[in-house]
Amino acid sequence: MKICLIGAGRIGTVHAIAIASDSNAILHSVVDFHQKSAEELAQKYNTITLSLDEAFNNSEIDAFIIASSTATHADLIEKCAKAGKPVFCEKPIDLSLERALACAKAVEESGIVCMLGFNRRFDPHMASLKSKVDANAIGLIQSLIITSHDPEPPSMEYISSSGGLFHDMMIHDFDMACWILDDTPRSIYVAANAANNDIANQGDVDTASVIMNMNKGAIVTIINGRQASFGYDQRIEAFGETGMLQVKNVLEDTVMLSNSTGVNQAKSKYFFLERYEKAFHNELVHFMKSFQSGVQPSVNISDGVLALKIAEAAKESLQSGNSINL
Amino acid sequence: MKICLIGAGRIGTVHAIAIASDSNAILHSVVDFHQKSAEELAQKYNTITLSLDEAFNNSEIDAFIIASSTATHADLIEKCAKAGKPVFCEKPIDLSLERALACAKAVEESGIVCMLGFNRRFDPHMASLKSKVDANAIGLIQSLIITSHDPEPPSMEYISSSGGLFHDMMIHDFDMACWILDDTPRSIYVAANAANNDIANQGDVDTASVIMNMNKGAIVTIINGRQASFGYDQRIEAFGETGMLQVKNVLEDTVMLSNSTGVNQAKSKYFFLERYEKAFHNELVHFMKSFQSGVQPSVNISDGVLALKIAEAAKESLQSGNSINL
Amino acid sequence: MKICLIGAGRIGTVHAIAIASDSNAILHSVVDFHQKSAEELAQKYNTITLSLDEAFNNSEIDAFIIASSTATHADLIEKCAKAGKPVFCEKPIDLSLERALACAKAVEESGIVCMLGFNRRFDPHMASLKSKVDANAIGLIQSLIITSHDPEPPSMEYISSSGGLFHDMMIHDFDMACWILDDTPRSIYVAANAANNDIANQGDVDTASVIMNMNKGAIVTIINGRQASFGYDQRIEAFGETGMLQVKNVLEDTVMLSNSTGVNQAKSKYFFLERYEKAFHNELVHFMKSFQSGVQPSVNISDGVLALKIAEAAKESLQSGNSINL
Amino acid sequence: MKICLIGAGRIGTVHAIAIASDSNAILHSVVDFHQKSAEELAQKYNTITLSLDEAFNNSEIDAFIIASSTATHADLIEKCAKAGKPVFCEKPIDLSLERALACAKAVEESGIVCMLGFNRRFDPHMASLKSKVDANAIGLIQSLIITSHDPEPPSMEYISSSGGLFHDMMIHDFDMACWILDDTPRSIYVAANAANNDIANQGDVDTASVIMNMNKGAIVTIINGRQASFGYDQRIEAFGETGMLQVKNVLEDTVMLSNSTGVNQAKSKYFFLERYEKAFHNELVHFMKSFQSGVQPSVNISDGVLALKIAEAAKESLQSGNSINL
Repeated sequence: MKICLIGAGRIGTVHAIAIASDSNAILHSVVDFHQKSAEELAQKYNTITLSLDEAFNNSEIDAFIIASSTATHADLIEKCAKAGKPVFCEKPIDLSLERALACAKAVEESGIVCMLGFNRRFDPHMASLKSKVDANAIGLIQSLIITSHDPEPPSMEYISSSGGLFHDMMIHDFDMACWILDDTPRSIYVAANAANNDIANQGDVDTASVIMNMNKGAIVTIINGRQASFGYDQRIEAFGETGMLQVKNVLEDTVMLSNSTGVNQAKSKYFFLERYEKAFHNELVHFMKSFQSGVQPSVNISDGVLALKIAEAAKESLQSGNSINL
Repeated sequence: MKICLIGAGRIGTVHAIAIASDSNAILHSVVDFHQKSAEELAQKYNTITLSLDEAFNNSEIDAFIIASSTATHADLIEKCAKAGKPVFCEKPIDLSLERALACAKAVEESGIVCMLGFNRRFDPHMASLKSKVDANAIGLIQSLIITSHDPEPPSMEYISSSGGLFHDMMIHDFDMACWILDDTPRSIYVAANAANNDIANQGDVDTASVIMNMNKGAIVTIINGRQASFGYDQRIEAFGETGMLQVKNVLEDTVMLSNSTGVNQAKSKYFFLERYEKAFHNELVHFMKSFQSGVQPSVNISDGVLALKIAEAAKESLQSGNSINL
Repeated sequence: MKICLIGAGRIGTVHAIAIASDSNAILHSVVDFHQKSAEELAQKYNTITLSLDEAFNNSEIDAFIIASSTATHADLIEKCAKAGKPVFCEKPIDLSLERALACAKAVEESGIVCMLGFNRRFDPHMASLKSKVDANAIGLIQSLIITSHDPEPPSMEYISSSGGLFHDMMIHDFDMACWILDDTPRSIYVAANAANNDIANQGDVDTASVIMNMNKGAIVTIINGRQASFGYDQRIEAFGETGMLQVKNVLEDTVMLSNSTGVNQAKSKYFFLERYEKAFHNELVHFMKSFQSGVQPSVNISDGVLALKIAEAAKESLQSGNSINL
Repeated sequence: MKICLIGAGRIGTVHAIAIASDSNAILHSVVDFHQKSAEELAQKYNTITLSLDEAFNNSEIDAFIIASSTATHADLIEKCAKAGKPVFCEKPIDLSLERALACAKAVEESGIVCMLGFNRRFDPHMASLKSKVDANAIGLIQSLIITSHDPEPPSMEYISSSGGLFHDMMIHDFDMACWILDDTPRSIYVAANAANNDIANQGDVDTASVIMNMNKGAIVTIINGRQASFGYDQRIEAFGETGMLQVKNVLEDTVMLSNSTGVNQAKSKYFFLERYEKAFHNELVHFMKSFQSGVQPSVNISDGVLALKIAEAAKESLQSGNSINL
């Protein structure tokens, strides 16, 4: 499978390594508006750079991976739809629900394989929990708790263009909840604060707890925060009739130091690049399998639309102080 | 310190063992409406039984421990207040907030030492977390999550006279939240279900998630359930500016079995008698210290009143589907 | 069951509490050469003190618990044998193998129930491992590793009369190995050092690693040390054909603190009184059951003799630098 | 850095992925006696194949990685020495100590950078323990325990040409012990069995416990076995004056399932490819740094010779039943 990679930045490099680690994928070419970035990445893998137009006119390319900035996602997905090319795109589709819906419609009409980069679904830890849930290891789920704390807040520049905590950060957790439970929320209630003054001044929050009543009866709790002293905090707890499943944090190493202060272990892996390293490879494998079989990937553009809808309801609950029905 | 124990049932026996394990306490006498129960317990410790009247007229008795049924608590506390005797009483004061307020008034006017059996505060694990919070180990607390699942539902007879999940079970967690944070809630939102049909038919719930906004800014989440397949589930997680503190479940033993199915550990200790065994001794020690110093115990009748108030608001939120201000 | 307790010191008090916590046992009387100690303990439990002669002439007494100093053990056990009274005695029988053999002979001839205080067998954690081994949870055991580090060295006075590391400390582990494997060693090899100069000057060691080849084929490794910075270190690892069983250390509490230094837990429970608290109660229960059924207890005087024999061989290996056959 | 890879089999592919994941390394060419294997690997990375002669005559090549069979190692290292090319070679140098010594001499005389693939030193977990030891986190080490169990025995064909347990498997642990303690053994004692009859028939063992007295005073215990039901078992425990450091097993995932059987976690990662995946990348980085700086790598041919010497003494102890001085 010959892949053209659009975006040669940090996340683009991650995808390039995933391609190099997989025996069935070949990096065909690199596209980036910063030609120098494109060239550096291409050279490392003995391959070529292309302009966007050249790429969409190149018949050798089997599929596209979009790892450019959020604002370009919907346009590039639609280009793939028009060209009839399978596409993997980083989340989100767009910050605007309206724009995302239009894009989803274009994808649907084209019938292309279109996979969205909700990478956590492909993390071995999260995927193991999900497969156990599906195998009925804990019976009917009564309560699901998703905890996500970043190791430190992003820059204020990032915050200002992020769409806010719910669209930028908790959107992953909305997707996880719907995916794990195979369900959608019927109501959502939000309690949130801004511990960080700069974030408060931007009208955003950095600490939020959310309760969702799901249509099939489970109660979902999501805890989010922009700063954790002990590294990236990514945990899930599903409590069911016959058991409880938990994904624990992945620590930097397994070393335990016992001394006069007690028993001490490492911090959590720092952030998403370290924590979700395997997920980037696994999602590529899933995308290739989808491409080869023609079956739509398990996570597609409609999942992106659903998560955006929940994020909007969360914002509304925060503003009103009430529970919002979806 | 010579103690008269009122109530020779299951919880009374626990208090008798705590007294026997402490070098400074002596079991003076046992009172129970079932004379046979009283006699059996007295014989084991080479001591006497008394009627209620005899007990309150006996000048040798330094203090009372009330371990009889809930309906008798308020009356017996008031008898102690009238007699000017220090009293330790199992929670709750009463199911009725009004009756509890009257009792609290009587205690206050009498000036007696009156300690309420919110035993979890004296559990070594919970107390260790609290002391670390007070020593500023994690800075300002942003989020507190309290999880409590019983190993199995009580009898329907018990349920019907319990006052419901919030008054009977979550009342412990309301107390813990206020105690750990040294704060009170300004609003509460409840999502709850009855997974068990018998419980539903009684108009009660068995699964509940609660969010409270506290006056000083922390967000509290409480998860309760009447049934856990893996034993008594008693956990706390306090997430603060500079760290996170967690109380984990106490397992039956530390044995790990690694085999072809993975790494396997024991279940949680079965229920409150096993899990909170130490707490019953520690609360006795605290009560005796309070008696000797004349300083009111750290947990007194006003804490019982506060927890009842929150339980009533929780019930109101469940009925209305809205967040309730306190 | 009416018990006379000989020895009102630290370990005697532990036995008194065990008796008070058990509904079937009654503390009949206390004997101690220091009459004041005997009286204080008796008063706490509303009971009497006796002289040694009075005790052995008192027909009300059902059984004896010997918790006096090591030098008195063999004599007191023989007195019980002569009086035909069931006896529980703290380990060791004696520091001299010869004296222990004579005592064992007297016990055997008398036919009395005689239980030896190898308390670790009754620790819930160790007992859980043993029951899983017996239930064939890990198949044939190939390797057994026993680790035991005290939290800090005893006084030099204690060391000088202890009989040395192998007779005083590792004797527990010799017993554990034989018990868990239901086997005896055919050879033993010792490597040992004295990290502490005072201990070296007494001709003793404080750090030792031992390998024993057992008759049925398992290889046993024992690691001992007189000082651990993180509290009492009491672990076992049994590696078998189909699995591995481990007893982990019991920590002071289950609190986890995650912060910028990592994830931190408490130290191990400090020493044997805290760590083996339950074992003292459980061994009493076993002793009473043995008394009532007339069946010899699972740990008796022959186990004490076997452990002494291994300790002597260990000493010999250390001196010769060679493996010693038993 | 342009690298020629000799050996396109399983371990060669691992090195190719490590090269592709590193931004500073380029896979220049592939050599393998099976030309088809060489071609498949070369195609994946858009590069060329060479014969052995072509490779050693190609001036573009900066360094060699040797991942071919053991019997070819010493010859190929000597070719690199003659050609003056930096070389990374998988362990062992050779099964014969004599041949290894000759090869080491050739390397020394040439002055080339020659790194040996004791990959465990570059595992993040092991390296973290070592760095803490070097930072004096636990003071003087008194006892070091290294546990290594393979998930399942290799084929009898492999066993017969492996050189036996000590040369094939425990050689890693001999290297680890010397590396962690920065010391060498003065004596070694071995207890070993063959649980597997086929292995016994080959005159080899599959279960071994070893004690080494190190020159600086530490006591090293090594436990090895050819079969663990729960996956690859790779643990280390260093017990020092002021603390204990442990490397725990790396589990397949962090999921915990709590149910009526207890708390269940995943098995250990299956084998060395999964467990030491990061180590293969990290050792490449170290090799490149060594190449660039001209400083000899931290693990070189003399470490390979030392480990072989200890393995020979281990064999001698097993045969004699005595402790062997080195």
